[in-house]
Amino acid sequence: MTHGFGPVAPPDARIRAAAEQRQTQLTKPAGALGRLETLGNWVAACQGVCPPKQFERARVVVFAGDHGVARHGVSAYPSEVTAQMVANFLAGGAAVNALAAVAGATVRVADISVDAETDPVVGKHKVRRSSGSIDREDALSQAEVEAAIAAGRAIADEEIDSGADLLVAGDMGIGNTTPATVLIASLTDTEPVVAVGRGTGVDDAGWSRKVAAIRDAMRRARPVLKDPVDLLRVAAGADIAAIAGFLAQAATRRTPVILDGVVVTAAALVAEDLAAGASAWWLAGHRSTEPAHDLALKQLRMEPLVDLSMRLGEGSGALTVLPILRAAVAALAEMATFGEAGVSTSDAETPAAPNLTK
Amino acid sequence: MTHGFGPVAPPDARIRAAAEQRQTQLTKPAGALGRLETLGNWVAACQGVCPPKQFERARVVVFAGDHGVARHGVSAYPSEVTAQMVANFLAGGAAVNALAAVAGATVRVADISVDAETDPVVGKHKVRRSSGSIDREDALSQAEVEAAIAAGRAIADEEIDSGADLLVAGDMGIGNTTPATVLIASLTDTEPVVAVGRGTGVDDAGWSRKVAAIRDAMRRARPVLKDPVDLLRVAAGADIAAIAGFLAQAATRRTPVILDGVVVTAAALVAEDLAAGASAWWLAGHRSTEPAHDLALKQLRMEPLVDLSMRLGEGSGALTVLPILRAAVAALAEMATFGEAGVSTSDAETPAAPNLTK
Repeated sequence: MTHGFGPVAPPDARIRAAAEQRQTQLTKPAGALGRLETLGNWVAACQGVCPPKQFERARVVVFAGDHGVARHGVSAYPSEVTAQMVANFLAGGAAVNALAAVAGATVRVADISVDAETDPVVGKHKVRRSSGSIDREDALSQAEVEAAIAAGRAIADEEIDSGADLLVAGDMGIGNTTPATVLIASLTDTEPVVAVGRGTGVDDAGWSRKVAAIRDAMRRARPVLKDPVDLLRVAAGADIAAIAGFLAQAATRRTPVILDGVVVTAAALVAEDLAAGASAWWLAGHRSTEPAHDLALKQLRMEPLVDLSMRLGEGSGALTVLPILRAAVAALAEMATFGEAGVSTSDAETPAAPNLTK
Repeated sequence: MTHGFGPVAPPDARIRAAAEQRQTQLTKPAGALGRLETLGNWVAACQGVCPPKQFERARVVVFAGDHGVARHGVSAYPSEVTAQMVANFLAGGAAVNALAAVAGATVRVADISVDAETDPVVGKHKVRRSSGSIDREDALSQAEVEAAIAAGRAIADEEIDSGADLLVAGDMGIGNTTPATVLIASLTDTEPVVAVGRGTGVDDAGWSRKVAAIRDAMRRARPVLKDPVDLLRVAAGADIAAIAGFLAQAATRRTPVILDGVVVTAAALVAEDLAAGASAWWLAGHRSTEPAHDLALKQLRMEPLVDLSMRLGEGSGALTVLPILRAAVAALAEMATFGEAGVSTSDAETPAAPNLTK
């Protein structure tokens, strides 16, 4: 073990119980807000306070990186698009920018392994240019995988130290659904043809090349499946390794995260192996159209909040559901209790609502 | 026909086509935002302008009314709660208040038929106290049903004239899932036991009483199924008739609406009969746990955006998804095109993005 994550303590069970109790005192039938109630209780447990506080600094980090395998015709887009999109993020013109603005979040871009020179503001944690073509070579050296995990960990620390109270990881990288699918199919013991999707929209011939590349990479990954760091080194890429480090560190630092699509969730699957119990701090945002995404969510025993046929990455799916999490917090924190509002209950013997701070 | 609604013209097909075209020019793979794209296109078509404008005055109207059938043990709560909750809405302590605040909407309460004196500010359009017990008598007289539909229509006009650019109808009324289920089961030719849910949480004995009441009311409704006004008079209530008038008028006035749960969707089913084509202006927000809600959505050929096991009413489900609609508008309106951002496309021959105003 070179990564240094320990097992992660779960969100506060005592506060969660207090939140569950408070839900029964709010002016609504018990359970009538459905999943909004369990979501609100989860946030309270993560924050260690009931009622929970509304998120004041929700932060998206888009991890950008290229992948050698993209040279072999597995994507609908050329690799140059990764750097172009980094510039687009910085100019505020991408989906993540538009969606973050309406969701009340801010965006950070981290060039972890883009195969180009990018704006220096995003390159602080750059590990290398691109990653190895995983169908025929390791994605990273041992030093690189350690640097990439450390980069994600450092970014999580920087954001949490700057006050982030909710994190979203996003991804940008032409070809990145290929390593993501390798990780997920390998860790869920799934045949490539079942797991492989169209990514950004590859055609039939490209899809066949993608299946073949994933099959080859899975064969290379098989000997290292038990070790998450080795697996990231052999079959992922610096960007995905950084996301895994970011997700593990966010959980270690008791900060909730909304997961995004197939790339982030592939990293999450490995991060749970890096830091057992970390997934209790993560919420599945949406179910994308990539078949591997659903496989990963099932493995993590997560039911996403929405299924809107999205498949963009960048954190776009997580940002689309962030307001649902805000709604859950608002309901639990802002609603009046039956006693406060003078509303009759269906059961006369309800005790006072708890208002707990750790 | 006493209600005076005509057939409703659909949202602007030319603008919708322009929006579809614009989606292909934005810096994302075509279709990668999934349902956010079709939602954004729908908003553009409703507004008659592409790109669409972000909603500036989203408005929830909670229609409150009591139901005589509640005296017969079909609900977990006593009828007094309706008036108490109206006071809670005005004090800002209910779920609708908390959810509207985070969704950027404002709340209006309309006492249409509460069986109590309420604050005069909500009583401008009050039709009567309560409605008849539909298992044994008509809900309303002919004059009352006309007044109720006119009330909803007037409220829609007032809101739209005040600048509302997105409307949500909510409901509050102990016992109101009983008439809602009668309308839906009658109009979808469904057996009561299949359609009846727990409402706010009625117990087994109450559920059996509810099924019996619904069966009796469906028998009374059968002769008037072909006439929406007669159906509202016999088997609904003043609040539901007002919601139907509100939904029909919003569509007539070319103003989009997010539908809420089973009560609002029951009114929508009738409103589509009042004003053919009106449903093209409505979006299904969520799928509630009430079985009749799903039946109504299927009849309207609508697929809701989320399924979060909510069953509160008040507009809570619609408000929970309102930010998803905002996200759809933001993506279509704020994202850069490939040309603007200097990003390579997967297809070199993409024409310039249209920017159309009616």
